Amino acid sequence: MIRIGILGYGNLGKGVESAIRQNPDMELKAVFTRRDPASVTLATEGIPELPVAQLTERKEEIDVLILCGGSATDLPLQTPAYAADFNVVDSFDTHATIPEHFDNVNRSAASGKKTAVISAGWDPGMFSVSRLYGNAILPEGEDYTFWGKGVSQGHSDAIRRIPDVIDAKQYTIPVDAALEAVRAGSNPVLTTRQKHTRECFVVAKEGADLGAIENEIKTMPNYFAEYDTTVHFITKEELERDHSAIPHGGFVLRSGVTGTDGTNRHLIEYSLKLDSNPEFTSSVIVACARAAYRMNREGMYGCKTMFDIPPAYLSARSGEELRRKLL
Amino acid sequence: MIRIGILGYGNLGKGVESAIRQNPDMELKAVFTRRDPASVTLATEGIPELPVAQLTERKEEIDVLILCGGSATDLPLQTPAYAADFNVVDSFDTHATIPEHFDNVNRSAASGKKTAVISAGWDPGMFSVSRLYGNAILPEGEDYTFWGKGVSQGHSDAIRRIPDVIDAKQYTIPVDAALEAVRAGSNPVLTTRQKHTRECFVVAKEGADLGAIENEIKTMPNYFAEYDTTVHFITKEELERDHSAIPHGGFVLRSGVTGTDGTNRHLIEYSLKLDSNPEFTSSVIVACARAAYRMNREGMYGCKTMFDIPPAYLSARSGEELRRKLL
Repeated sequence: MIRIGILGYGNLGKGVESAIRQNPDMELKAVFTRRDPASVTLATEGIPELPVAQLTERKEEIDVLILCGGSATDLPLQTPAYAADFNVVDSFDTHATIPEHFDNVNRSAASGKKTAVISAGWDPGMFSVSRLYGNAILPEGEDYTFWGKGVSQGHSDAIRRIPDVIDAKQYTIPVDAALEAVRAGSNPVLTTRQKHTRECFVVAKEGADLGAIENEIKTMPNYFAEYDTTVHFITKEELERDHSAIPHGGFVLRSGVTGTDGTNRHLIEYSLKLDSNPEFTSSVIVACARAAYRMNREGMYGCKTMFDIPPAYLSARSGEELRRKLL
Repeated sequence: MIRIGILGYGNLGKGVESAIRQNPDMELKAVFTRRDPASVTLATEGIPELPVAQLTERKEEIDVLILCGGSATDLPLQTPAYAADFNVVDSFDTHATIPEHFDNVNRSAASGKKTAVISAGWDPGMFSVSRLYGNAILPEGEDYTFWGKGVSQGHSDAIRRIPDVIDAKQYTIPVDAALEAVRAGSNPVLTTRQKHTRECFVVAKEGADLGAIENEIKTMPNYFAEYDTTVHFITKEELERDHSAIPHGGFVLRSGVTGTDGTNRHLIEYSLKLDSNPEFTSSVIVACARAAYRMNREGMYGCKTMFDIPPAYLSARSGEELRRKLL
């Protein structure tokens, strides 16, 4: 049994907890939290909720520690800090600072002879793996990644910061025509606006200037200005009834050519349709925890990403069974 | 530079030759053939065509030998034979006997401290890898693999063996309604007939009994009897004009659930649309040759499949560049 610890009990931590129950070779040992443990009620009975201060003294009981904090402020500190004492997995997703995070975690994990898998999930994660396979197989080609339809937490938060907005949900939606152009093999050059649209559901204060809010959303730099954006004002009840789920997904395409004269076209497409973004991310993380455990036992220390994990290490089945049933 | 040798210069060998030209870290050293080398003209100038008997004496010049023979009679003998002296890659695709082939190759490669990658391609190969990732991430779910639209060599050959048939091409076609049912998340139980149809283009001798040929095709056990099959009789000219390409492709889907009550559904879909089945297969093989070379240098001896290859080993780029650009 691989003994798992969870640090952080938000959506992701809860997703990891339920994913562990789907994997018979794993058991949850404890959930560590910065909140008052008495205020946290786990879905799994009999598992202790402990203060984060007790983590290090419990290190002999935990084979892999899964870090379920956020990429903005938690993981840049937590992952390097804990990777010296634990095999760890995180879902660090700030693409621009992955190289720096990797180096920090690598130093720590290598010094402690531990194995740390960072940026596990679907993007970064399975989408990255799909881009890598596509590039390795078809070196002459173009990459396309589309996201959605799904809820963007960052964009929803940006709307919520506007005065007189009570709550909001933002959906990122891939543009069908752009997807079809890629699938047709025309290798189009697509602008930001041509690839995705943004749809916002906003609950405003009574008497708020809706036109002003809509204008502020649509012209917000980085978040909305480069996109065709639709804004719907709805009630708090409608938001809760129709927009409380956290779906997401998307498409990774590699369009390339082969042959002596480069005339044969090939299209590789990987897509996800997810009812729950955090639960799917958690499911990837838990498979990576298994890989981290195995890699550590084989002396593969330091920081790793899904690029470095042989696919078989993610699975509970033996190599022999995998070859017989899935190859 | 990774120095590649090719054994066998059919469609696959030619595909490997052109794929090597797309990979700047590789060079083709020689093509070995069982035919009279004088009868073989390579697409690449300046590369020797050599008789297969010279292979072993050239072993110092070749980092990876790519075996481009067939799975029925060539590879079961060739791969174990050469894996003792060379790092090798093959595309052995008889699913039922992969475990036996693996054991034979493993003994040989391990004894010679070589690395052998078997069953490289897309099915087995990238489709297998997709099934494995899907199963590891979503342990509670169902697998679906659809093939096509594409040419099945085995089924085309079966038609050609019927008396009075001059030539034939058979297309395997996935049934849209079945694909859509899987995508809708209903986890349907599908019969063979519900998943694929078969379409045949047949050139018959003048005066042949077309009705008898059509009946023989449609009732042929294992090949056609379990499918809805359409037969078109066409001229030799039409067959050459409209059916000389070797396209293929297909879909691998994993449909699963997560969450405490298992109510959140997720769909993972991997698909390929290939203008040339042998050229795409060759492109995968060449990426696996890079991995075999690297794994061998790191002491990872014996038989491997794509399940055992960390994705990064397939790419010519450094780990640092991969993390920066593709993660």
